[in-house]
Amino acid sequence: MNKKEALKIYHEHIEKIKAYDLVLATADFDSSTIAPKKGNAYRNKMMSIVQGEAFPIQTDPVLVEAIDYLNGIKLDEKMSREISLAKKNLEEILRFTKEEVMEYALVQMNANDAWLEAKQKKDYSIFEPHLLKLIELTKQRTLKKKPDANVYDTLLDDYEEGMNMKKYDAFFKLIRKELVPLIKKVSKKQDFIDDSFICKYYPVEKQERFSKDLKKYLGFDPSWGYMGVSEHPFTNAFSRNDVRITTSYEEHNVISSIYSIIHETGHAFYEHQLDPAYDRLIELSGMSSGMHESQSRFLENYLGKRESFFTKLYPKLQKLFPENLKDVSLEDFSKAANVSKCSLIRTDADELTYPIHILIRYEIEKMIFNDEIDLHDLPKIWNQKYKDYLGLDVPDDASGILQDIHWSLAYFGYFPTYALGSAIGAQIFHQMSKDMDVDESLSKGDFKALTDYLKDHIQKYGNLYDYDRILQIATGEPFDPHYYTDYLKEKYQKLYEL
Amino acid sequence: MNKKEALKIYHEHIEKIKAYDLVLATADFDSSTIAPKKGNAYRNKMMSIVQGEAFPIQTDPVLVEAIDYLNGIKLDEKMSREISLAKKNLEEILRFTKEEVMEYALVQMNANDAWLEAKQKKDYSIFEPHLLKLIELTKQRTLKKKPDANVYDTLLDDYEEGMNMKKYDAFFKLIRKELVPLIKKVSKKQDFIDDSFICKYYPVEKQERFSKDLKKYLGFDPSWGYMGVSEHPFTNAFSRNDVRITTSYEEHNVISSIYSIIHETGHAFYEHQLDPAYDRLIELSGMSSGMHESQSRFLENYLGKRESFFTKLYPKLQKLFPENLKDVSLEDFSKAANVSKCSLIRTDADELTYPIHILIRYEIEKMIFNDEIDLHDLPKIWNQKYKDYLGLDVPDDASGILQDIHWSLAYFGYFPTYALGSAIGAQIFHQMSKDMDVDESLSKGDFKALTDYLKDHIQKYGNLYDYDRILQIATGEPFDPHYYTDYLKEKYQKLYEL
Repeated sequence: MNKKEALKIYHEHIEKIKAYDLVLATADFDSSTIAPKKGNAYRNKMMSIVQGEAFPIQTDPVLVEAIDYLNGIKLDEKMSREISLAKKNLEEILRFTKEEVMEYALVQMNANDAWLEAKQKKDYSIFEPHLLKLIELTKQRTLKKKPDANVYDTLLDDYEEGMNMKKYDAFFKLIRKELVPLIKKVSKKQDFIDDSFICKYYPVEKQERFSKDLKKYLGFDPSWGYMGVSEHPFTNAFSRNDVRITTSYEEHNVISSIYSIIHETGHAFYEHQLDPAYDRLIELSGMSSGMHESQSRFLENYLGKRESFFTKLYPKLQKLFPENLKDVSLEDFSKAANVSKCSLIRTDADELTYPIHILIRYEIEKMIFNDEIDLHDLPKIWNQKYKDYLGLDVPDDASGILQDIHWSLAYFGYFPTYALGSAIGAQIFHQMSKDMDVDESLSKGDFKALTDYLKDHIQKYGNLYDYDRILQIATGEPFDPHYYTDYLKEKYQKLYEL
Repeated sequence: MNKKEALKIYHEHIEKIKAYDLVLATADFDSSTIAPKKGNAYRNKMMSIVQGEAFPIQTDPVLVEAIDYLNGIKLDEKMSREISLAKKNLEEILRFTKEEVMEYALVQMNANDAWLEAKQKKDYSIFEPHLLKLIELTKQRTLKKKPDANVYDTLLDDYEEGMNMKKYDAFFKLIRKELVPLIKKVSKKQDFIDDSFICKYYPVEKQERFSKDLKKYLGFDPSWGYMGVSEHPFTNAFSRNDVRITTSYEEHNVISSIYSIIHETGHAFYEHQLDPAYDRLIELSGMSSGMHESQSRFLENYLGKRESFFTKLYPKLQKLFPENLKDVSLEDFSKAANVSKCSLIRTDADELTYPIHILIRYEIEKMIFNDEIDLHDLPKIWNQKYKDYLGLDVPDDASGILQDIHWSLAYFGYFPTYALGSAIGAQIFHQMSKDMDVDESLSKGDFKALTDYLKDHIQKYGNLYDYDRILQIATGEPFDPHYYTDYLKEKYQKLYEL
C-alpha cells in the first residue's frame, strides 16, 4: 500500500459512512419533529438495521489497514489530525459487534420515544426502565472501550477531549465559590427588576412570525438552514450547507423560543462556517461538545442578552404584541431578559444560575457512574439537589428529571460541556470586545460582522485543535475560567446594583 | 435449501431492503418539502450512494436462490403472488450493475432539482438537458429490461400490470368519442355557473387552518399521517402507520389545496388500510399506479365533488372567509367546485376535461418512446396539443410542459393511470352507491363509513390481485370504462342542463 492508495481507500470509505450518516440524520430529524407516533416502533427498527449496515464499512479490514498505514507516515497537519482521530475511533468501534451496535441504537431510539411520552404525561415510571437500561449499557460499553479508565472520566473525555472529573471538579469548585454567594445576594432582591410581562400570553402563531425576523437578523438563511419544531430544541448538520435546528414555543414565555433559536443558531453557524476542505473528511468536522456549546452559548448570552441585540428587533416584537409590550421600553425589556431567578428549567435559566443547573447534573452523573447511589432514587436525588442549590421544590418530574432529552439519548457526560462552553465563550467574548465594537455592530443590525469574527477566529478550525489550543490562538491565552466568573459577577452586580 | 430456510432468507433480505427504503423515502420527503437548496448536490450524491448500498442485498445470490426455490414450490395464495412478483422484479434488476443504479438515481434527483428551478423561473431551458438525458436513459434501461418488447408498452405495464398501448388506445378512443362532444357543448355555456368567488384572495394562513378541519373530517389522523407542503403534491408511505402527504397552497384558488389534500388522502388511506400481514412483505404492499389513482381520484371526485361532502365543512370555510363566501350558498359553492372549463393545469382540472389532459400526455409519451418526434420540439408539441384539444394558448412553460413533476422523476408511462384510475373509481362508485347511502354518510360527517367500505372492498387486498380481478370481486364485473363516461355525461348534462 502506498500513500495515494491508502488515501483513496480512506476517502471512499468516509464518503459511504457520511452517506449513511446523512440518511440516518434525516430520519432522526424527521422522527424528532414531524413523524407520526404510530410509526415509531417500525421506524426505529428500520433505522437500527441501517445503522448496522454501516458497521462493516466502518470496520472494513481494508480501511483498518489504510488508517494504520496513514497513521505511520508523515501527513500535513490537517490530515494527520484527521487520521489520528479516526484511528482512536476505529479502535473503539472495533471492540463491538454489528449486533451490539444495532441493539444499542434500537434501545436508544425506544428510550427517546419513552422519554417523550413520559415527559408529556409527567410520568417518570414510563421512562425509568429505559433509563436504567441505558445507564447499564453505557457502563458496559464504556468499560469495553477503555477497560482501565474510570467510566465517567471516559464519558467526559468523549464529549470534550482532555476533560475528566479532576478538571471539572476544579472548574465547578470555582463556579460554586464565585457564584453561589452572588446568587444568594441577587435572590434577596427578587422584585428589583420587573419581568412580569415576559410571561403574559403570547400566541404561538405570532411568535412564529417573530422567529422569521429573528432568523433574518441572525443571518440564519433558508438557503442553507431550516428550522423545525420539537419537544427539545437541537441542531443537526446534514452537511455544511444543510443545517437543521429546532425550537419549541411556550405560550406564556416570549423569550423561551427566542433564546432557544439564538442558541441553536450559534451551533448552526459553527457547522456552516467550517473550512470547506473538511467536506471530504469526517473527524475534522466533528467538533467537541464544549467548543460547540461555546458557540451556541456565545450567541445566546454574550450577544443575545445585550440590550443592543434588540435595537433593531424589539420594535418588531412590540408591534406584534402591543397588548403586552407597548409600554415596555427596550431597556426594561432587556433587563427583564436578564433577570436572575432560581428556576426549575435549565434551558430557560438566566446566565447566573445556569451553571448551577449543570453542576447538579454533573454531580448526579458522577454518582451514577461511580455507583454511589441506588438508581431508583434518581428523581428524589434530583429534587433534593434543586432544593439544596436553588431552594426550589420540584412540582413534577416533567419540570425535574424528565426536562432534558440528553439522558434518553445516552448523552451521559454531555451536560458539563454546557458550563465549560459558557466559560470558553466568556474568554472569547473578552477578546472580541477588545477587537471590535460589539454593541455598534449589534445596534446597526450587522450581525454578520460578529459571526464573521467567530468564523475567522474559532469556527473555521473545526476539530483541528482542542479547545485549549483554539483559545490560545484566538485569545493569546490558555483556557481561564475566571473570565467567566468575572463576567457574571460584573454583569449581575451592575444589573442588581449590588 | 428447504421452505423454512428459503422463507427466512427472503424475509431477512426484505427487511433490510425495506430499511433502506424507509431512510431513502425519508430523505426524499425531506428533500421535496423542507431541505435547504444549497445542500441539494451533496444530499443527492449521498442518497445515490445509499441507494447503491442496497443493491448487493437486492441481488444477493443467496436471495436469488431462495426466490427461485420458493417460486418452484407450492405456497399459499399471498406468498405465491409475493414471490412471483419478486422474481419478476429480480430478473429486471439483475440486468443492471450497482453503478448503473447509482448513476440513474443521481441523474433523477438532479433532474428533479432542475425541474423545480425551471418551473419557478419559468425557464424550460434549465430542465431540457436533464429531461433529454432521462428519456435517453429510460429508453436504454427499458430495452435492457425487456429487449423484445416495445419500450412504451413496457413502461405502461410497469405502472399498471397488463396495460399496453393497444388497451390504452381503445380506452382513450372511447374517452374522446364520448367526452369531446360534451366538452364542446359545455364550453358554449361558459358563464352558466358563477365560480368567480373561487379565485378571490384566500390567504394561505387561513387555508392552512381549514386544512386541519378537512383532514379531521377525512379521518387523516396525525397519529399515523403527516402533511407537509411541496411544489407538487404527493403521497409517500414510510409504513402502514406512517403515511406522508403534501399539498401546495394557491392564494387565488380556494379549492386547489382542498382537492389536492382530498386526493392525497385517498392515496394515504390505501397505504394505511392494507392488510397488516403485508408489513413483512414487499410486493403485496406495492400497489399499481392505476389502482392507487382509483382511490385518490375516488376521494377527490366521486366523494369530494358531491354537495353532501361539504354539508359539515362548508360552514367552517364560510366562517374563515366571510368576505368571499358569506353570500354564497352551499349549493352554489358545490356547483362552482364542479364547473367544467378548458384550463391549463391538470391538477386543477375539473372531472370532465381532466382525461383530456391525460390524453395529451399519453399521446406525447407515445411519440417520445416510439421516436416519432424531435425531442427539442416538446414544448411546441405540448402547446399545440393544448390548442387542439382544449383551445388554449399556453402562456409560459410553467403552465405548460413544466407543470407536472412526473417526467423529472422519469415517471414515463405513469400519466395514463390517472385516467384509468378515474375510470376504475367510477365503476367502484357505481357499486358503492348500490350498497350504501353515500350522501347520507357524507352529510352526517361519517366519512369513516366510506373509507371503511373502500378498505373492505378494495384496499385490504393491496397488490394481491390485478385491477381487473379486484373489480370483479368488488363489483361483480370486469373493468368497464363506460361507467366512467356514463357518470361524466350524466353529471355534466344535469349540471349544465343540456
